[in-house]
Amino acid sequence: MALDCGVRLRRMTVAYRTYGTLNAARSNAILVCHALTGDQYVAERHPLTGKDGWWDMVVGPGLPVDTDRYFVICVNVLGGCMGSSGPRSMRDDGMGLWGTDFPPVTIGDMVRAQKMLIDHLGITRLFAVMGGSMGGMQVLQWVASYPDAVLAALPIACAAYHSAQNIAFHEVGRQAIFADPDWDGGRYWASGRVPARGLAVARMCAHITYLSEEAMTRKFGRRLQNAPKDPSEAIGLFGEMFEVESYLRHQGSTFVQRFDANSYLTITRAMDYFDLAVEFHGDVANAFRGTSTRFLLVSFTSDWLFPTAESRAIARALNRAGANVSFVEIPSDKGHDAFLLDEPDFHRTLAGFLAGCAIHAGLET
Amino acid sequence: MALDCGVRLRRMTVAYRTYGTLNAARSNAILVCHALTGDQYVAERHPLTGKDGWWDMVVGPGLPVDTDRYFVICVNVLGGCMGSSGPRSMRDDGMGLWGTDFPPVTIGDMVRAQKMLIDHLGITRLFAVMGGSMGGMQVLQWVASYPDAVLAALPIACAAYHSAQNIAFHEVGRQAIFADPDWDGGRYWASGRVPARGLAVARMCAHITYLSEEAMTRKFGRRLQNAPKDPSEAIGLFGEMFEVESYLRHQGSTFVQRFDANSYLTITRAMDYFDLAVEFHGDVANAFRGTSTRFLLVSFTSDWLFPTAESRAIARALNRAGANVSFVEIPSDKGHDAFLLDEPDFHRTLAGFLAGCAIHAGLET
Repeated sequence: MALDCGVRLRRMTVAYRTYGTLNAARSNAILVCHALTGDQYVAERHPLTGKDGWWDMVVGPGLPVDTDRYFVICVNVLGGCMGSSGPRSMRDDGMGLWGTDFPPVTIGDMVRAQKMLIDHLGITRLFAVMGGSMGGMQVLQWVASYPDAVLAALPIACAAYHSAQNIAFHEVGRQAIFADPDWDGGRYWASGRVPARGLAVARMCAHITYLSEEAMTRKFGRRLQNAPKDPSEAIGLFGEMFEVESYLRHQGSTFVQRFDANSYLTITRAMDYFDLAVEFHGDVANAFRGTSTRFLLVSFTSDWLFPTAESRAIARALNRAGANVSFVEIPSDKGHDAFLLDEPDFHRTLAGFLAGCAIHAGLET
Repeated sequence: MALDCGVRLRRMTVAYRTYGTLNAARSNAILVCHALTGDQYVAERHPLTGKDGWWDMVVGPGLPVDTDRYFVICVNVLGGCMGSSGPRSMRDDGMGLWGTDFPPVTIGDMVRAQKMLIDHLGITRLFAVMGGSMGGMQVLQWVASYPDAVLAALPIACAAYHSAQNIAFHEVGRQAIFADPDWDGGRYWASGRVPARGLAVARMCAHITYLSEEAMTRKFGRRLQNAPKDPSEAIGLFGEMFEVESYLRHQGSTFVQRFDANSYLTITRAMDYFDLAVEFHGDVANAFRGTSTRFLLVSFTSDWLFPTAESRAIARALNRAGANVSFVEIPSDKGHDAFLLDEPDFHRTLAGFLAGCAIHAGLET
């Protein structure tokens, strides 16, 4: 596959999971796109962590994305670390692993790889493409790249470009990884170590941006607990720590058990470079002119990583392009992570929109 | 000096600078309190960086804090690294440096050390105490601890406690320092190295919180520049970087030349533990009952580290306590850092308030 950077991957693996059954007309397929640290295990136990699927409140029998009715596909993104080609994969020449020599990928590359899979599955037109955060970027890219292949598009809690502040937070995470001597210039597999501390710091920093100040205050406030007896961090500061610190440390340390540091570098970079307007003569509306795709945009009031204003800007561009667009801002104090959490209003919105599209597509029984 | 943690410091150094002349009545002294990474060089060239004083737009002849009229004192906080006792100081027993064995300090300890200096200078009552961010926390603590020693108090861009989100950002910075092997359990002076990469990551993360999304977008947007040829970071990602990344890296690398990592740990912890209500039976208003101090609270519209709501909460507590309080929210898109930058409305507000207090105090010529 040819990548946007000009490099051609001679070997490419695309790891994916499916749920439900593809109908005879191949017209009931929904592609779910995952976020930065997500993967293809959207609605089943994760093989590494043993935890439930990351969207198992949304995807499953009788749920908003009803696997009794739809054939759901979820693909590990190109550059990822759960089976699709990425820095942890074998090089094209079979001489060792890619590591940081894995070519830079874009959101466009991720979508192109997904399109090859969809073609391979014999699906001409997806009933829907949906996803939150970086998943939402992929949704926008799908419609822009393959306007006739998507009946309904659901970009959730995302933006048509990555902002300076979001790039800055990603850069802090990357610098934390670079600063870890176990990263070893990206060749950590040679030493058998992983840059666990650097990757954990990157995750902690990012995790703050996924929550809201309200959610943190509600969950943790200023409550204290006893500090762990970790001599490497024994700095004698009161012998107590705040619950929010303990929570963040836990987030950092569990993340490194399931995620690859070089993938984190590659995928954050792909997000940073996402800017749909650049591809389309400076105006996102040009990406959607004449589209027959039906859009549902969703944002959350307390999301400060991809604030409502970003979704509103997409809605305006879609309106300029004459597209069929619904836009819903869900009241929530849970921040960006709300799209992954128990938000009944959000789930009802998804279900209602998909039901309407199903009628439109003649999918109703 | 007895610290809040119960430890007694037998040797204590308080480094400070003064500007202007103390009048015969010793009634024209203004104490300026610095923020987390500030120091006593408020209005003169910094001896390490060669840069102008951190508040030289506010403090100086003819400026809002007019050194032709006022005697300005600025003290390096306890736990700091510019001369006052801190982790880089000699232990009480003279056997080496404190390092991370330096006792934890509180905002209350910082203020107590300042009070000892003020007493030493023969000043019974300060004309004003002022400061932004952690400096503002010290201002609040001053009035709470020594209600008769402060005629006017100016807490700027601060809060009466540190929020869960702010604690979380500090914790990311501390973990980045802990993760740097050159930190060496806090005993880095033994190796002659400093945990430069960890401290730089901490600074980069914190720096994002000092700006606003608007300011970042205005200053950097998504503009690219050529990436530096640094082999340790050569990860082949497009060969370009965003200007905001370059800016953050510069912020990180210059910071480590002037600041001590263990001081960063000690002072962030002092901020985290600040919660004025806890000292006063759960209500900040109790800290100010019956006070005759005149207050000016200032916040900035785009400050998301210490948002206006925090200043408003202090204003309400002061009103409940029957205090004399003015509260001004300055429109600015510069974020938390606005209090250090060229904000004419802010500077006029300071000048006007101080002029009114001077008349009240009989200081007018």
